[in-house]
Amino acid sequence: MTPGAPALGSTGAGSPLAVDLNADLGESYGAWRLGDDEALLECVTSANVACGFHAGDPLTIRRTCARAVACGVRIGAQVSYRDLAGFGRREMVVPPAELEAEVLYQLAALDGVAGAEGGRVGYVKPHGALYNRAGWDAEQAAAIAAAVRSYGRGLPVLTLPGSALAAAAADAGIPVVTEAFADRAYNCDGTLVRRGLPGAVLTDPDAVAARVTRLVTTGTVQAADGSDLAVPARSVCIHGDNPGAVAIARAVRAALAAAGVSLVPFA
Amino acid sequence: MTPGAPALGSTGAGSPLAVDLNADLGESYGAWRLGDDEALLECVTSANVACGFHAGDPLTIRRTCARAVACGVRIGAQVSYRDLAGFGRREMVVPPAELEAEVLYQLAALDGVAGAEGGRVGYVKPHGALYNRAGWDAEQAAAIAAAVRSYGRGLPVLTLPGSALAAAAADAGIPVVTEAFADRAYNCDGTLVRRGLPGAVLTDPDAVAARVTRLVTTGTVQAADGSDLAVPARSVCIHGDNPGAVAIARAVRAALAAAGVSLVPFA
Amino acid sequence: MTPGAPALGSTGAGSPLAVDLNADLGESYGAWRLGDDEALLECVTSANVACGFHAGDPLTIRRTCARAVACGVRIGAQVSYRDLAGFGRREMVVPPAELEAEVLYQLAALDGVAGAEGGRVGYVKPHGALYNRAGWDAEQAAAIAAAVRSYGRGLPVLTLPGSALAAAAADAGIPVVTEAFADRAYNCDGTLVRRGLPGAVLTDPDAVAARVTRLVTTGTVQAADGSDLAVPARSVCIHGDNPGAVAIARAVRAALAAAGVSLVPFA
Amino acid sequence: MTPGAPALGSTGAGSPLAVDLNADLGESYGAWRLGDDEALLECVTSANVACGFHAGDPLTIRRTCARAVACGVRIGAQVSYRDLAGFGRREMVVPPAELEAEVLYQLAALDGVAGAEGGRVGYVKPHGALYNRAGWDAEQAAAIAAAVRSYGRGLPVLTLPGSALAAAAADAGIPVVTEAFADRAYNCDGTLVRRGLPGAVLTDPDAVAARVTRLVTTGTVQAADGSDLAVPARSVCIHGDNPGAVAIARAVRAALAAAGVSLVPFA
Repeated sequence: MTPGAPALGSTGAGSPLAVDLNADLGESYGAWRLGDDEALLECVTSANVACGFHAGDPLTIRRTCARAVACGVRIGAQVSYRDLAGFGRREMVVPPAELEAEVLYQLAALDGVAGAEGGRVGYVKPHGALYNRAGWDAEQAAAIAAAVRSYGRGLPVLTLPGSALAAAAADAGIPVVTEAFADRAYNCDGTLVRRGLPGAVLTDPDAVAARVTRLVTTGTVQAADGSDLAVPARSVCIHGDNPGAVAIARAVRAALAAAGVSLVPFA
Repeated sequence: MTPGAPALGSTGAGSPLAVDLNADLGESYGAWRLGDDEALLECVTSANVACGFHAGDPLTIRRTCARAVACGVRIGAQVSYRDLAGFGRREMVVPPAELEAEVLYQLAALDGVAGAEGGRVGYVKPHGALYNRAGWDAEQAAAIAAAVRSYGRGLPVLTLPGSALAAAAADAGIPVVTEAFADRAYNCDGTLVRRGLPGAVLTDPDAVAARVTRLVTTGTVQAADGSDLAVPARSVCIHGDNPGAVAIARAVRAALAAAGVSLVPFA
Repeated sequence: MTPGAPALGSTGAGSPLAVDLNADLGESYGAWRLGDDEALLECVTSANVACGFHAGDPLTIRRTCARAVACGVRIGAQVSYRDLAGFGRREMVVPPAELEAEVLYQLAALDGVAGAEGGRVGYVKPHGALYNRAGWDAEQAAAIAAAVRSYGRGLPVLTLPGSALAAAAADAGIPVVTEAFADRAYNCDGTLVRRGLPGAVLTDPDAVAARVTRLVTTGTVQAADGSDLAVPARSVCIHGDNPGAVAIARAVRAALAAAGVSLVPFA
Repeated sequence: MTPGAPALGSTGAGSPLAVDLNADLGESYGAWRLGDDEALLECVTSANVACGFHAGDPLTIRRTCARAVACGVRIGAQVSYRDLAGFGRREMVVPPAELEAEVLYQLAALDGVAGAEGGRVGYVKPHGALYNRAGWDAEQAAAIAAAVRSYGRGLPVLTLPGSALAAAAADAGIPVVTEAFADRAYNCDGTLVRRGLPGAVLTDPDAVAARVTRLVTTGTVQAADGSDLAVPARSVCIHGDNPGAVAIARAVRAALAAAGVSLVPFA
């Protein structure tokens, strides 16, 4: 966690609880459809919009931005390795100057398309394998941070607390916003239980909703070993690419409302 | 020709002759090199920079923009069909909404990358088969014009006098800048002699230089049938992708200087 | 129609009626799913398997071939323009030598992957915009036929009666198999009613099934103007990429069985 | 080294010395040219032909195969990660089933195109980052070996002595042919000095020629620390993608001839 980052849910002394919900959107490509963007846009406050390198042809991007603007949902640049065939889920060893240019290109493209629809990019969140690798690879993390800084609009990166990307962004003078995962199990050290291990992904909407509500109201989740784990986060990620995503998103939204938590984009 | 467009070379009553020289740049891709960008940047005033769809990986784009900024050369978006394997030279029938989004995406990407290097896109010029098709296909021309308008910075398109794109841009309220080709033969109706026909492409630097000088100082070229042809143009295109491109560009530049013609980017 | 081609359904004097059913399969790509291949494989006798240029990553291709082999369904090479973003639905003007090499490459790739699963390619059918263009463009049709011939296994092409591809294949000494479309309306000249026009695509499974049964048993369909139209075809195409595809395929299969028509791959 | 592999240069008891020379070819792509294939084809006995994933559009592949056949040079499948923008030099973490299918697809495509030109693929050699990773990553090495085995023609893989790919191929019952690098410095453990370190790449044609001649006639090279290193290899790789490649290849060929070494494709 970035030292001095506000605790999750806190919007200041005495203020009511609030949190941001983010999800991946715009991940269709040409004739292929993925995810239920319309439904998710009614649930989240921030949309991680694919930029064309792992998903998102230009028309899909444009339409996704138009819908996000119409729904009042903030647009984020979901930058990725260049890997359509692998949906950005295959880790790549990209030289830093190349990676920086690739991230900059994607960010710029999305921001310009968003602008044509009356929106603009509000943050940057790496996708898939790039997200994971930027969690520990200081070189790739620095390349991402350099791209965001070179774009020059003071955009924050959205990342895991304690990640290499959080550190690189802080070094580069880029704002960092940390996030928690609604539907993923945590190890007791704050890392995510690896996909493929039993229990790594939570699928019951009510259980996920209860978990998120606890996280937002107390700042903790129960780790896989049963211990309490503090997870400092100003945004909660709802995965959009599994069948139950919409049901989970709706359950989370309803539970947070019932607990008096406001859904607001992070500042 | 757009009615009322200024005659080539004219910069206003009583002012000295001036013209813009443009060439395609940034057309390398990854490990593949194409063209001598360094040399051409010393000759031209406007660089049509590839945007990644027919050529130009993000790092090539970035470095090309940096060099253009360093040389004081204006950057244009050389937008293309999505066709790396065919270098954008294969005509495509793209639905208008898709084409508009693809052009917008490329323009935005280049503009953002240019911005990171202290530059910005100053105009839009379609590449290859898209350029040719936009010369007569009103639907594709309108899609390009719509993309440029939707980007919202009042950018001009650079195109042939009398082209469908010139008409579409005028309809869309987009500025039009017309160009002539330094090294291409013209039919007597102002169209270009089709590549592949004998004499379609001029390769002698001195002959090209003399032709361009005549064009700029008199507004005419000799057409393939020997007749005089008025070619209203505010920019002259030097092709960058053939072996003699640099020699031609240098000869043109020298000849124009000798004739007292200033090389200045179009307004 | 190729002169002398056998009438649809005919397998020889006195023999029972038989027809081939074909559908597009293997059109997923990476994380994106398209169509219900498992269900369609239980209905058809020939699978037009995507070869990677418009759809079909290598693993999808391999799995599709394995399933086709397991189901006893013949594999065809559904060759396409190189256009993932447009799903091969955007017409391209590709020089003949390039197109021939692209078709050859796809055909070879699919055949080798099929071989690893105990199958082999039995025919070639162009996809989408290439199919349509090969219907009238003699140059592209000749390039496809040249590719199939150069591959050297005597494979037939599957195409519309009377198409340029049928003519080109005949010229090249390539076998031609003609097909009819189960769910498309016909003009009285044997061409298809253009998509987008009212009634161009039939969606009622029972109506489609009755139409196919009539076609197979009488060799005719009712054209859009109400007239009877002879459609010589040895295969009937069921589209796989619309929501009702499986229901239509099942209805057709059941109706043909009820009419005593055997479903057998064309020879 | 595979136990029992013949020593480099040995073709059997009492026979004269012989070696295979291999180089990368067909690495152009569309409008982009790379390497001097014509000149290299006169020097080498085996051509590692790009298969389309890092370089090599279908027409380039076809023409390269035609030239190789005309020159009597054996064709190998230079399979790669899917990475045009990075020329296959960016390491990727590809799930084994995907990698196996990708290798199979490339191998099949090349073999079929070669067949249309009267040739056929004689071996498989991974390219770039895949070559390097297959040197130590047992999982990716096994995927490559599985692909080659599944293709079913008993093709050998060409790889470094002692590599994970050599082991995986042996496990899979695939023949292994080991190679040495003409222009690369070796560490004393038989690994290559990493590119980027001083002296990692040798550029003087005479020095390279002398080194190769010693390697073929004695089976050893001088390692970077001055020690003698045994390098068991039946083929020697000449890099084709640097400016001096042709000069080196010619010098190597001449020196080997002068030393009485025959150039013959490995069995």
